Amino acid sequence: MNEYDLIILGAGPAGLTAALYALRYNLKVLNLGGIVGGLMTESHKICNWPGEMSITGHDLSQKMLKQVTETGGEVITDEAIAVEKIGEAWQITTRGKKSFSAKAIIMAIGTEHMKLGLPEEDNFLGRGLAYCATCDAMFFKGKVVAVVGGGNSATTAALYLADICTKVYLIYRGEELKGETVWHTEIAKRDNIVSLKATKVKQLLGEKKLEKIILDKEFEGSTELAVDGLFAEIGVKPKSELFISMGGEVNETKHIKVKADQSTNLEGVWAAGDSTTGSNGFRQIITACAEGSIAANSAFTWLKKSK
Amino acid sequence: MNEYDLIILGAGPAGLTAALYALRYNLKVLNLGGIVGGLMTESHKICNWPGEMSITGHDLSQKMLKQVTETGGEVITDEAIAVEKIGEAWQITTRGKKSFSAKAIIMAIGTEHMKLGLPEEDNFLGRGLAYCATCDAMFFKGKVVAVVGGGNSATTAALYLADICTKVYLIYRGEELKGETVWHTEIAKRDNIVSLKATKVKQLLGEKKLEKIILDKEFEGSTELAVDGLFAEIGVKPKSELFISMGGEVNETKHIKVKADQSTNLEGVWAAGDSTTGSNGFRQIITACAEGSIAANSAFTWLKKSK
Repeated sequence: MNEYDLIILGAGPAGLTAALYALRYNLKVLNLGGIVGGLMTESHKICNWPGEMSITGHDLSQKMLKQVTETGGEVITDEAIAVEKIGEAWQITTRGKKSFSAKAIIMAIGTEHMKLGLPEEDNFLGRGLAYCATCDAMFFKGKVVAVVGGGNSATTAALYLADICTKVYLIYRGEELKGETVWHTEIAKRDNIVSLKATKVKQLLGEKKLEKIILDKEFEGSTELAVDGLFAEIGVKPKSELFISMGGEVNETKHIKVKADQSTNLEGVWAAGDSTTGSNGFRQIITACAEGSIAANSAFTWLKKSK
Repeated sequence: MNEYDLIILGAGPAGLTAALYALRYNLKVLNLGGIVGGLMTESHKICNWPGEMSITGHDLSQKMLKQVTETGGEVITDEAIAVEKIGEAWQITTRGKKSFSAKAIIMAIGTEHMKLGLPEEDNFLGRGLAYCATCDAMFFKGKVVAVVGGGNSATTAALYLADICTKVYLIYRGEELKGETVWHTEIAKRDNIVSLKATKVKQLLGEKKLEKIILDKEFEGSTELAVDGLFAEIGVKPKSELFISMGGEVNETKHIKVKADQSTNLEGVWAAGDSTTGSNGFRQIITACAEGSIAANSAFTWLKKSK
């Protein structure tokens, strides 16, 4: 039977923590997620997870997954593509053409990478252009790359790439870097990282693969910069389309509007993690997990009352 | 010099996570806390910390402490007893008669055990009456004890005590137990746990130490119950007196009123963890940590602007 008390859409830190809490309330729970660990899997070094001096996103994801499955949870690598209310239950159809139903849903669907917004972008994807240093850095060993972005994703990507590439250009729009200051200090120490502040990438050029990028201002006398690879680390956006299609309310940046108990405008639907307006917009692994725990508690309380 | 950018009052999960985040912003940070790990240290088994199948509160506290000190943090086992604003800085005096000052403060002061409210209570403390099963259970090995309370603290205490005591009475006011359902299932499996629902403890009796308790209704034909020990696990209350003395605003249960960014009504003072009104009142280790991270981020942003 594909009927559950609670189905959690997503299997990142928010979704897995929601499952953990719900399981400890003895609910029948399923996580449906495209990638176990979600975007967390792309972090090659996490130093701000309480209790772990340094851990990879992959390892932390696997620890959370193990705990959920050993506590009795089911985690299926598949994604919901349609959700509709039929009678008292939410009916879910997945990309893998499976059907599930549940009385309660937690949207823990996370985010996806923002694109640069250049017309030639899709042509260079996988041919020099990448959105995840942790995933793709090794393809650029011994080469020259650029990282676009000024936040934690970009600074940590630049540091990681500096270990294996001959040169890393760090290109950002602002006058200074954002995010954790420790990364700025580390970047200043690296001889092979060259920072280009207040600069934008205007164009990607190359025959069969990326060969150079065009900047909006001159660097060392030219707007052309020869690179083998470009990592766009300019942020993420919530994957809230499915929620919107259900009639869910989002804010101007498409983040799911949640109340203090992680409830949404839809009865029987809660949301947690990077895709929500919660945690003062400070979207961390630890805040995603906390939102997951609160959402599970709220869903449990609601299920108990509605019985 | 005892001058810091940020002083965190408390060294439990909220305070240590706040320190971790603040350190990664390169702030000069100090934790002042009576007990490293706070009330978390009293949990003998934590199963809902993401990534750890089962860990003791002591071990999780030590892991967090190690990470903070290795990241460059200072943690002093002492408690603030007075805080006043002198010029631009908060001046802190501790129980250990030390003085410290900081531009920003995070109150992560946690909670303390609620008492039963019986006049003879203080007389029996340490003579049969205890407030922490994890701390004191071993004094009652092979004996008969009672646990008062119906939430997670009480149910987990009863289970822990059932392993080492001959009999455990679980006495609670409500018609049913609260908290995580898995604990209720576990309790039902134990032959030596006897549940007394809708019952209150009216009086503690004994010569040199606790010998029996008086109930407000009969159990097996008598209101007297012979016990060697009584564990009061009826909840906690915020240690917010110091914050109130600073002019801080609390709610009717004395929890520190916080906004979404964990700020309080006092400029330069944030709060995080079990002592606040945050996280929808769902006070968990994971939510305390998340609040700590948000508070640190808010304090950092404020310090950067005020420079």
